Amino acid sequence: MTTAYQHLRTHFLKIAHLDHAMTFLNWDQMVMMPAHGIERRSQSIAELTGIRHELLNDDAMADWFAEARHSETEFADSASLREMHRQWQQATCVPADLLKAQIVAGSKCEHDWRTQREANDWQGFLKNFKEVVSLSREEAVCRQAADRERFATPYDALLDLHCAGDTQVLINKVFGELKSRLPALLQEIMETRKSREPISIVGDYALDAQKALSEQLMGILGFDFDAGRLDVSMHPFSTGVKGDLRITTRFSNTEFAEALLGTAHETGHSSYESGLPDAWNGLPVGEACNMSIHESQSLMFEKQIVMSRAFCQFFTPLLHKALPDTQRFDADVLWQAYTEVKPSYIRVEADEVTYPLHIMLRHDIESALINGEVEAAEIPDLWDEKMQAYLGLSTKDNYTNGCLQDIHWTDGAFGYFPSYTLGAVNGAQMFAAIKQQHPDWQTHFEAGDVGFVREWLRERVWEQGSLLDSQELMRSATGETSNAEYLLAHLEARYLRGEY
Amino acid sequence: MTTAYQHLRTHFLKIAHLDHAMTFLNWDQMVMMPAHGIERRSQSIAELTGIRHELLNDDAMADWFAEARHSETEFADSASLREMHRQWQQATCVPADLLKAQIVAGSKCEHDWRTQREANDWQGFLKNFKEVVSLSREEAVCRQAADRERFATPYDALLDLHCAGDTQVLINKVFGELKSRLPALLQEIMETRKSREPISIVGDYALDAQKALSEQLMGILGFDFDAGRLDVSMHPFSTGVKGDLRITTRFSNTEFAEALLGTAHETGHSSYESGLPDAWNGLPVGEACNMSIHESQSLMFEKQIVMSRAFCQFFTPLLHKALPDTQRFDADVLWQAYTEVKPSYIRVEADEVTYPLHIMLRHDIESALINGEVEAAEIPDLWDEKMQAYLGLSTKDNYTNGCLQDIHWTDGAFGYFPSYTLGAVNGAQMFAAIKQQHPDWQTHFEAGDVGFVREWLRERVWEQGSLLDSQELMRSATGETSNAEYLLAHLEARYLRGEY
Repeated sequence: MTTAYQHLRTHFLKIAHLDHAMTFLNWDQMVMMPAHGIERRSQSIAELTGIRHELLNDDAMADWFAEARHSETEFADSASLREMHRQWQQATCVPADLLKAQIVAGSKCEHDWRTQREANDWQGFLKNFKEVVSLSREEAVCRQAADRERFATPYDALLDLHCAGDTQVLINKVFGELKSRLPALLQEIMETRKSREPISIVGDYALDAQKALSEQLMGILGFDFDAGRLDVSMHPFSTGVKGDLRITTRFSNTEFAEALLGTAHETGHSSYESGLPDAWNGLPVGEACNMSIHESQSLMFEKQIVMSRAFCQFFTPLLHKALPDTQRFDADVLWQAYTEVKPSYIRVEADEVTYPLHIMLRHDIESALINGEVEAAEIPDLWDEKMQAYLGLSTKDNYTNGCLQDIHWTDGAFGYFPSYTLGAVNGAQMFAAIKQQHPDWQTHFEAGDVGFVREWLRERVWEQGSLLDSQELMRSATGETSNAEYLLAHLEARYLRGEY
Repeated sequence: MTTAYQHLRTHFLKIAHLDHAMTFLNWDQMVMMPAHGIERRSQSIAELTGIRHELLNDDAMADWFAEARHSETEFADSASLREMHRQWQQATCVPADLLKAQIVAGSKCEHDWRTQREANDWQGFLKNFKEVVSLSREEAVCRQAADRERFATPYDALLDLHCAGDTQVLINKVFGELKSRLPALLQEIMETRKSREPISIVGDYALDAQKALSEQLMGILGFDFDAGRLDVSMHPFSTGVKGDLRITTRFSNTEFAEALLGTAHETGHSSYESGLPDAWNGLPVGEACNMSIHESQSLMFEKQIVMSRAFCQFFTPLLHKALPDTQRFDADVLWQAYTEVKPSYIRVEADEVTYPLHIMLRHDIESALINGEVEAAEIPDLWDEKMQAYLGLSTKDNYTNGCLQDIHWTDGAFGYFPSYTLGAVNGAQMFAAIKQQHPDWQTHFEAGDVGFVREWLRERVWEQGSLLDSQELMRSATGETSNAEYLLAHLEARYLRGEY
């Protein structure tokens, strides 16, 4: 190893130690901190952010990269170098003044959005949002300029922040296939279900018992409570580091499924982190690949495992025991409740079939917006038009439940949305490969055994860290890059034919 | 303000922001973190400690102090400068090699002690401990040399780390008075209680109900749950910052008093922090004065307020309601249970009357040890001799319950013990002044009103931060420096005459 490469490693480990601190201070802030703690907490996190920024902008970095470039012949070392360089470039290629202007504009836009959304005030929002879009376009151009070889469009450069490896070209291929087939599939599903009685699993469910049941489910899914914990927070999330993974969820007195499936989802995210390669702990190449792969793991645990008929068979007796008010329905009703389908306005409430349509609408708009093909003012009309085309619903004049519903764009987080549906595609594709290798998968699920899924993922995904980019990883794990066919086949099997 | 003074302020605020991070990472480690989180947590805290160390050892500091010295004419600014200088000097006057050797020797000694204590293995312990003592003596000499004007003896320089303002001369005066009167007072108390029936408040107490009751007590004592929280941990402690104060306690199924009084104690510590001056947030002069004053606040809340007859009258109905198994005894029995006295071997289990005797024994030994007047090998004999003189108990050959019982000395924390009894003295002295100003104090306590105590303390202690040193503070608050007379009067009144 060259000295320059060693310097870079040491430097990035230092950054990881600061990130550790910020990770758990943020967790604490969301889960534990009393209201009046915010001022001094913010000051502390700002200080650590500043120190981290200084480290990444260290004058020596450029020289180290120049000296280390192509010096490492081992595949893993050169991947490590590549990932360090990517993070460094991302952190340093945008002028500080622009970043600062973005933080100011984004904070104001997000803050005002909280009331504007409720007030259906598109014009008010637009005033702030134009500035956010303008600055994000500037950012995207900057990022593209830093690496023209990798980024065909400005939007590609923003994608790289969340979905590195998944280009606009790849997304167009995958989403194109979905767009051409999913709306018709949705219609067909709705048609076959027209006469179905609505199902209700609403009841009276004790919060303590739900928490214990969630922990039981996590254990079944392979979560290690010596290396993580479950807590309650307003907005469920998962965070932490390998060895200390923190999942949060929230519970309702009348509804248990959302918390349970949410816990399964976050357990998927955590499982990925728990399997990352020890040898690269704290270095960029040791981190999870990208958000599209991350989401594939959470959706696999939620949609492919816990929502399957076979797992419902296994889990229902545990459910009956933990929440006695569920005893009036059986595994089949539970599965039917899990797999209800209904086109609706709100993305976060959408089911497995309609969810990708919400995402494609957003991706259509944000990619055109960032690449300068449409203007912010045109969004409501585009939204309405696409909602009608994809989901058969109009959002005309309904901004609250239309283009004002998501927080992502308010502070300029463009390029994130695609990861949700790429995750669903990747998850279905990996699970198809697992099923092929384990034709008896349903027998395992009926016995509460998911170990074979974990082992498959551990070897092909988790232990890979960021050695491969997302599409290389998909090819190495499943034999091909992301392919919408597997998600479509999954949806047809489950929702048209009721197969699993 | 001079530029140098401004630089110092900015620099110390930066340090405070790092301390904030470490405070809450440590809290998390004690209360929340799963077992496997320790490795990466330690690395993160080590990194922050290193950055903090670099900041304190910044080359510019000495120049700033030299330039700022005597430049500030406002009393508060010059106190601020003094406190910054004190912390800087403490952090930089000991050579790094010595500090490192101390960490190595201390860690080994503390680690081995955990088994040696149980095994009654004094000789094994002594082997490690000699090195700890030798390094601590070296440290004390170093610290004394850095400020000969302030430190009359090497031990005084270690006292300054925990009990700044309380010199060996002051302690000799206060402890001398206690030594000459407390053993006889103890005998007299035991004599009057010879025929008393033993009291038991053991029962069956639900943990949830105890936690809720602890929170209720904290609220009555003025704790603000928007600015802090109560959790459960193996070893009760309090930490945090103003605006976010974290108390922990532990609960037993059969015993409620320890947790309740422990909560009151930690609420005293937290109340002090909650009242520190906003204007000096994050600067050394804005911190609590020293451990002798800190302990006076916790002991005031525990011993003077919650253990008083009047408060027991108020609190017993709440206790009866929360823990039904307490309904078989009344407020008087509760008070009798709180105020039982029994000479015993173990400091942490000692009652209010015998506790100071445990401390004086330790202070006698540690001050002589650090000043080179006795050797580590002599400790068991000294311990036995003093236990017999102060408490009438022999610890001959009984190291487990004798000189091996405490963790403090194992890693070289000499100079801390006196703060416990100085705290009791200061607390009794302040409370005597409060009673003089509020002759109807018992009526207030019977109504659950402790606001007048908080207001007295807020103005004279909490809002003073470290503007005054501990003895200046005592004089300004009570008219005289620490005086054992008040603690002795309190013990006589409560334990001989049963007055409150």
